[in-house]
Amino acid sequence: MNLPFRSVGVVGLGQIGGSLAQALREAAPNLFLAGVDVNPDRLRFAQSFLDEAGRDLNILDQTEVVLLATPVRHILKLMHTLAARFPRKFYLDAGSTKAKIMAQAESAGTNFRFVGGHPLAGTEKVGEAGWNKNLFKEKYFFLCEKKNTSSADKQLAETIVRLTGARPVWVQPGQHDLTLAYSSHLPYLLSVLYVIQGEEEQKLDPHFLGTGFKSAARLSGSSAQMTLDMILTNREHALNEITGFAAHLKKLKEIILNGTEEDLEKLFTEGQQLWQKVTADD
Amino acid sequence: MNLPFRSVGVVGLGQIGGSLAQALREAAPNLFLAGVDVNPDRLRFAQSFLDEAGRDLNILDQTEVVLLATPVRHILKLMHTLAARFPRKFYLDAGSTKAKIMAQAESAGTNFRFVGGHPLAGTEKVGEAGWNKNLFKEKYFFLCEKKNTSSADKQLAETIVRLTGARPVWVQPGQHDLTLAYSSHLPYLLSVLYVIQGEEEQKLDPHFLGTGFKSAARLSGSSAQMTLDMILTNREHALNEITGFAAHLKKLKEIILNGTEEDLEKLFTEGQQLWQKVTADD
Repeated sequence: MNLPFRSVGVVGLGQIGGSLAQALREAAPNLFLAGVDVNPDRLRFAQSFLDEAGRDLNILDQTEVVLLATPVRHILKLMHTLAARFPRKFYLDAGSTKAKIMAQAESAGTNFRFVGGHPLAGTEKVGEAGWNKNLFKEKYFFLCEKKNTSSADKQLAETIVRLTGARPVWVQPGQHDLTLAYSSHLPYLLSVLYVIQGEEEQKLDPHFLGTGFKSAARLSGSSAQMTLDMILTNREHALNEITGFAAHLKKLKEIILNGTEEDLEKLFTEGQQLWQKVTADD
Repeated sequence: MNLPFRSVGVVGLGQIGGSLAQALREAAPNLFLAGVDVNPDRLRFAQSFLDEAGRDLNILDQTEVVLLATPVRHILKLMHTLAARFPRKFYLDAGSTKAKIMAQAESAGTNFRFVGGHPLAGTEKVGEAGWNKNLFKEKYFFLCEKKNTSSADKQLAETIVRLTGARPVWVQPGQHDLTLAYSSHLPYLLSVLYVIQGEEEQKLDPHFLGTGFKSAARLSGSSAQMTLDMILTNREHALNEITGFAAHLKKLKEIILNGTEEDLEKLFTEGQQLWQKVTADD
């Protein structure tokens, strides 16, 4: 394959960073791949697919492209440092929220070649337990451009995304964060509350935990380090989703207490139909 | 295999009833299997694994064992009819709640040979789309005895359950309904509210719907006919779970609005640890 770059560095070897590196290794065996992480065990495991792995950002000196896959607030902190230290590289991040990251990318200057990214992929598995070279296959990978991103850099971002097996989709950062607050952040928050309620009610007896429980509880297993940054950098939208959900919960309680059987049936039928609608193309 | 019965009738060929019949067919190819349902298409499809299929309960005349796999309130209605019409058969049901069913079984008289059952299995798929002979493999199948259930009938129930591949677990009906309100009914209700909120907010754009969305939304696809009876026959426990969840949601909102970062981190870390705990043996 004739790629416009020969070397990629990945900062953060959690589920997403490690899987990005594995996917690139698979797609482009001759690519020079370097990885940075603070966890010594993880660095050791990652040597099986990286050419170089270490704690220090110096490693990035050897790479033309840098992927940022740490929690969002860490990416925010890192950007000015990287812009000053390695001003000529091309950067793509994989943080869960985009508005604050794109604002920071603008503030790092017009010469800072940065495209914001977010793969709509990932499971509740944390770190190396979640590494999977096929994690991004057929998944959407959201991309956000800076005001002055060149079309060459846009193409470069798309090339990287396609190499991982994902499909690039350009979005506005505000629209991304608004929508993800519903489609990703709210499910996570509900999931955490759900398992905590089970623990308080002493109902986490494995005999009674079937697939329904697991659907509702699974996301609670996500890396708290990652989700804390996700929620704190999308606070207003997350709050709106919580408020909306609380209103629906109140309405449901009212229907069960004082509504008719037909009211409840209507609600459940609507749920069934909406699921059929969203999965019609699956 | 030397079975203590040679014929089984299944009333209701939805996901559970159809899958029970398929599992029995697989485990005991020579068993006479009859099925009753009101849906002509479903009856036609079921002829591939049933010896007889029809709308009328008369078919049950030919079977020693009868499995009841219709929605809970239909089972409640059916029990006295069956006790009068076919008084010598052995009955096992598969309804989602157990307290009302066991009370009804007592009221049908001491001669009514009935064991209550509920397989902790099933997906959001409805009817024949959900038929799967392996649905019960390794799953728990809750069983409830009547006051005068003989040990022979208890063994019979266990034999049927094991034939389907599931593991029998004897429980008290009240304990079952209390616990399932948390582990199954609450996840379903949250899921319905979640997709309805998405529709109202116009956020059901497939580009943004990843695995997080699907986890949270999946159960909304369950048969509304089935879930309506499930909730209406477990109303008080379901209400308590909703009230509990609403309180957690309020606390979360308060933490995001006025709490510290550490408060939120503590909550997310607790969620992560609880998930690790409940999945430790997986």
